[in-house]
Parts: sequence; structure tokens; C-alpha cells
Amino acid sequence: MVKAKKWILAHHFDGNPKDSDMKLVEETLPELKDGDVLLEAVYLTVDPYMRPFSAVALKEGDTMMGTQVALVKESRNPKFPKGTYVDANVGWRTHTVTSDESLLRKFPPFGELPLSYAVGALGMPGMTAYYGLLEILKPKKGEVILVNGAAGAVGSLVGQIAKLKGCKVIAFAGSPEKCKWLKDDLKFDHVFNYKQVKDQEKAIREASPDGLDCFFDNVGGESFTAGLRCMKDFGRIAVCGCISSYNDKGEEKQGPYPNALINRRQLRVEGFLGWRWMAQWDEATLEMIDWIRQGKLVVKESVTEGFDNMRSAFYGLFKGNNIGKAVIKV
Amino acid sequence: MVKAKKWILAHHFDGNPKDSDMKLVEETLPELKDGDVLLEAVYLTVDPYMRPFSAVALKEGDTMMGTQVALVKESRNPKFPKGTYVDANVGWRTHTVTSDESLLRKFPPFGELPLSYAVGALGMPGMTAYYGLLEILKPKKGEVILVNGAAGAVGSLVGQIAKLKGCKVIAFAGSPEKCKWLKDDLKFDHVFNYKQVKDQEKAIREASPDGLDCFFDNVGGESFTAGLRCMKDFGRIAVCGCISSYNDKGEEKQGPYPNALINRRQLRVEGFLGWRWMAQWDEATLEMIDWIRQGKLVVKESVTEGFDNMRSAFYGLFKGNNIGKAVIKV
Repeated sequence: MVKAKKWILAHHFDGNPKDSDMKLVEETLPELKDGDVLLEAVYLTVDPYMRPFSAVALKEGDTMMGTQVALVKESRNPKFPKGTYVDANVGWRTHTVTSDESLLRKFPPFGELPLSYAVGALGMPGMTAYYGLLEILKPKKGEVILVNGAAGAVGSLVGQIAKLKGCKVIAFAGSPEKCKWLKDDLKFDHVFNYKQVKDQEKAIREASPDGLDCFFDNVGGESFTAGLRCMKDFGRIAVCGCISSYNDKGEEKQGPYPNALINRRQLRVEGFLGWRWMAQWDEATLEMIDWIRQGKLVVKESVTEGFDNMRSAFYGLFKGNNIGKAVIKV
Repeated sequence: MVKAKKWILAHHFDGNPKDSDMKLVEETLPELKDGDVLLEAVYLTVDPYMRPFSAVALKEGDTMMGTQVALVKESRNPKFPKGTYVDANVGWRTHTVTSDESLLRKFPPFGELPLSYAVGALGMPGMTAYYGLLEILKPKKGEVILVNGAAGAVGSLVGQIAKLKGCKVIAFAGSPEKCKWLKDDLKFDHVFNYKQVKDQEKAIREASPDGLDCFFDNVGGESFTAGLRCMKDFGRIAVCGCISSYNDKGEEKQGPYPNALINRRQLRVEGFLGWRWMAQWDEATLEMIDWIRQGKLVVKESVTEGFDNMRSAFYGLFKGNNIGKAVIKV
């Protein structure tokens, strides 16, 4: 009899998440039937999307949503043999019994690279960066791109891939340590600490007097507005997230919308989710593995030890605690 | 010696346009030199875009921007013989001497159709409707589209072309007379008077419980927000204008932006100007002439008599005075 720990959404978040909104509980798992696998979480992930998506996809008492790198500990399903690893979309749980193959993603062999990348640079956040940049923005060599939340799991990859494609990268992040990493290690062209910059629009204009061709927006709110106002005619904006507003009370902020500018400059503002391209993830994964091996793509993780600390790792996302990908090592 | 009357922007608009912002003046035109034409305005046009564009394209004292249907009254340019008509981008003027051919658009023969259509259904507003709908939104048969400002020059054509393409059209306009026209004559599927509807979002949801595939937004502000909230996943929004905010004081309204929704539903919001497709206008013009002759496309005009009344016709746009295209007959 296997005991599983899991985090449940005790109460829907309302404003800033409170400890009482999430609860750690135990359950006893059933015996395996034909087709079942028993999964043991090795790495779990906390991602900003979980905050807004929990409001629409979960009811109170549900297990919190998310994927994990899991070891197949026992198997009665020949497609997922014992001892293999999968990216399992089973929520915040230490152990899981399931026969639902649609929840289990096999990923290409990582070789010497850490398995945790399956929920980071070589998983949803990496695919979000890769396809959001290359399919939504389609940057051309020599173009100028703005990335905010640039030290995060997605933003740090977006900026690096944009550099690989020959773009000039203007980046915003939220601490001196983050900015130093972006400037010194990732070689982004212009890096600003948004907490210290008084006028973000002015900073962008100084970095690129002719304006922006592309804008990969992870932040929303004031940061979005500043970038929007600097777009060139026909500029493209990818709306990947808006972490600045996820903890706002009640409905997400609703406008009024700066449509006059969007109209006059003929801008395109497009929201997307990395899952859109899931059928093609393996292709991008293989390319990104190559880039990492060649040192063209630097991956950073902020690791929290212990399943019991997952809630605080999650809440930490909204305080800007992580540099690179926030992962939980069980 | 030909005397011309012209309207100049005496002061940049600030909030609601005032009579003193525009001034009617006279000037004496020069003799024609080789390459010159003398144009006499026959029909002029007032369009909402002139309000925001004047702020960025004109300085105080400049002639107000806009095109006109003009008769070539005298010509020393063989490309534009005396007695022909052109769509001339020369501003609000009764008479003009120019050698700048880039300002002069020849248009296909209209046959029995009124020449005024060259600044309406067969000019910029018509092309904006045609290409904005078919190139930006690309509606498919059976899709549901929302059009606001639906009794205006652009909106009334958008809804009709969408019907021709097999869409269900939900329309908002601002008076009982406008709504009656849209419902009874243009056969739009659901028509609402936004001044009488308490909750626009609720009205849209009742008209289409599954939401909207496309949204052609002429209005912005609350109307935009209501439509946005009803979009289906992967919905497309064409930002054609935002007449509700043009007279706002100072900068256009700037957010905060409802990016969480745009992200989660993977919406595309795209601003555009009809001029983008100017090289292809003749194609659309010929197709629309056919549609008009076959009775598939109904064109309505609100005609103001007299060049001297042009200012009040312009200001009337923002009060919702016109049904269909507002034109000025000299």
C-alpha cells in the first residue's frame, strides 16, 4: 500500500495567496490494475500560470495542477516500463496511480543533462519560450526585442534564443543579481532593473531610439504599457503571461485598452500557451539540447528541496524569488 | 486667379473638439506650371481617424487632413486630363494646385454609382472594411462575428460582407433608427442599441452562448472589453478604431491591459489601417461594385451640403449623427 502526499487547493486564491489556501494531505493509493503505472515524483514544478488557471480549471479541494518528472516505479502498462521517466501531468503529488496515457509525456533522451529540465528548459517553459518567440513573434536578424521577466524560466530562454537569431535584446528584471546574470552571463544588450528605473518607457527608448520590433511580455500591467508605447509600426507583441496582475483581487484587470495606439501603429498583440505546439515539442527539445551542449543556451534553476516546501516555492514566484526555473526536488 | 477655401487646424484638439479648433480661411492659388493640375472638390469626407491622426501628423495652422473626390478642372499633366475625377489626398480644400501625383488616386469606373463612393464604400472606409475583415479576421462560414459602430461607414459594410461570407453577425449601434436599419434592411442577426443595453457582455452571450470567433472593433473602451470577454479560444480581434476614446483628454487611455484573458484564451488583437492594402484597392473596388449592383451590398450616406459646414459634419461623427458614410457635397 503506497501512501501519497498531495497539495490541494483548499480555497480559491483571492488576492495574494495565503498559506490557508493550500493544504498538504495524504492518501492511500489503490493496487495497480492492468494498464496502470505507479509514478514517483522526482522533480516538480511551480509556474506562474498555475495562479490564474487554478481559478478556471479547479474547484476547491482539487489537487493542485501541474506536471512532474516522475519515475515509473511499478508498471502494468508495457508502453511505460518500470524504471523509465515521464513528464506526468498529474498535479502536485508525490505518488500517483494512473492508466491515463494522455497525462504521460515521454521525452527524448537528455543524456548528461539533468532530468529536471523536463519541467523547465526542455519542458513547458522552454517550449513556451521557443515557440512563442519563433512562431508568434518570428523575429528577424537585426530586429530589436524587449523581454520582461527576463530572468525567469521563460524570459531567460527567450532572450538567449533571440540573441542566437541575431536580435538586439532589451531586458527587464527585478533585482541586481538577476540583472547582473542577464548582462554578464547571458550577454543581453540592455538590462534594466524595473524596480530602480523610474520611467520604463524612457529606458527602452534610450536603449533603442527607433523603437521595438518585437515584445515578449511575461509581466503585463505597467511593464506592458511601457513596451507597447515603444513599438514600431507593425510591431508584434507576444502575451505569454502577466505575472504582475495574477494576484490582483477579483477579475483580472480589464482595460480600458490602448486601442488607439494599437490601431494607429498597426500592432499585433497575441496571447498564446506553449501547449499549442505540443505535437512538435520533441523537435524543439532536440534543438535546444544541442544548443545547451554547445554552450549557446545557459539554463539556470532555483531548486527548492522537499515536497512539503512546494507551496512556499510557488508563492515565491510572485515575490520574484527565483532566478531561472523554479523546481522542487522531492 | 482661383481662390480656394480651406479648413485649417487652428489649435490641436484637446478633449471634445471646439469650434475655435478649426478655422475656415481663403487663399489665392498660383498659376499652373508644367505637371500641375487644378482640382475642384466635388465631395469631401470626414472620418473618425482624423481626430487622432491630426494630433500626430499635423501642426497647428496646417490644412486639415483628408481626401476628396475632385474634378480635374485644368491640367498641365497628361496623366490627369481635364474633366477626369480623382480621389485626391490634399486635405480639406475646395481647390488645389498640385503636381504631386502620389496624392492622386485614379479609381475604376463606377458607372451609374455615385462618385461620392470614392471616399466611402469604394474608397478608404470600404477598403478598410473589406481588407480588415477578409485579411485580418479571415472569417469562415458559420463563424460568429461582433461588429460595433455597426451603422457607420465601415461597420455597416463589415457586417454585410460578413453575412455574404456566411457568418452570424452580432451588431451594436447607438440609436433606434440605426438599429432598425441594421436589422430590417441589412438583416444582421442580432442588433443592440448600446445606449439601452445595460450589460453588453450579457447581450452578446445571449446572442451567442458559445462566444465569438471574430470581433471587428470600431469603438474601443467598454465596448471592446465586453466583446473581448466573450471571445472563444483563439478568437481574432481587428482593432479598426476606437471612436469612444478619441475625445478623451490627453493621451489615449493606456490600460491596465486585460492580458491574462488574452493569454489564457490565446486571442489575437491586431490593429490595422486600410491604407496597408492600397496597392490592391482596385481589386476590392471592382468586387464591391459588383456586390452593390447585385443588391448584395447596401450603401448609405449621410450627406452634408456645403464646404462651410464641414467642421460641424466632422464633429457630428463623435455624436453619432451619421448613419452610413458621412460625406460633404460642395
